[in-house]
Amino acid sequence: MQTNTIPCELCTRHHPREIWRNDLVYVVDAGDDDMPGFIRVVLTRHVAEMSDLSAFDRDRLWKLINLIELEMRHYMKPAKINLAQLGNMVPHLHWHIIARYSDDAFFPNSIWGQRLREVDPGLTQQRREQAAQLLKYLPDLMATTA
Amino acid sequence: MQTNTIPCELCTRHHPREIWRNDLVYVVDAGDDDMPGFIRVVLTRHVAEMSDLSAFDRDRLWKLINLIELEMRHYMKPAKINLAQLGNMVPHLHWHIIARYSDDAFFPNSIWGQRLREVDPGLTQQRREQAAQLLKYLPDLMATTA
Repeated sequence: MQTNTIPCELCTRHHPREIWRNDLVYVVDAGDDDMPGFIRVVLTRHVAEMSDLSAFDRDRLWKLINLIELEMRHYMKPAKINLAQLGNMVPHLHWHIIARYSDDAFFPNSIWGQRLREVDPGLTQQRREQAAQLLKYLPDLMATTA
Repeated sequence: MQTNTIPCELCTRHHPREIWRNDLVYVVDAGDDDMPGFIRVVLTRHVAEMSDLSAFDRDRLWKLINLIELEMRHYMKPAKINLAQLGNMVPHLHWHIIARYSDDAFFPNSIWGQRLREVDPGLTQQRREQAAQLLKYLPDLMATTA
């Protein structure tokens, strides 16, 4: 785990919303009513940057992100996928994989930008159900490819 | 190029701030006084998502991004690297690679979030010079590894 004295909230052996884990990463359902299709991939160990990983682990991580992106596109039919590795708040490597829709609360802004509208609750419910399908099938797919 | 009738601003054979190009991508100096270390990697062809690329091209792109990240860390000594592929405004695949500092204008927010402070002009000038070094050496490095 990390070497400084402030505990890192991502250094955890079990995240409450974790859907899958291997030696390299754990995968979290980060969805809410604003962003039903929001998955977070977090490194199991405390590193800050992609270039801190070995080429082998970087490649494994990219393959996993690509699988999640493909399945998110299949189940959720978003207008756009957003991928981001920021870590300014928590410098423990993690990726945001987000299904974006032209009528979501922030589009075309980033989800860290200004909220532009409220989303129809029926639409949110429909996307919640699509996300549930994605989250149901994803762990087995990750296990067979990672 | 794209198939719809609205011209895509990223579908260009020469970007005014381009520092390098191969068959897969062109690389743009996106730096300004807020973010002197800001590089954008743009696909030469009009695709929207990483998973639209072949595994071969995806791998080439990741290797290039990793090289830029490593050199950005070397020359600019940022507190954190931010990587993002959003494309909500322009759905033509491009990556933002950004050197972040704890005293930059937005930290710890994303650069798409709320501005939090003004940066000392002397510090901006120093980082501009570091970015100039990065931009000077990067094209040759990209040519030998891409």
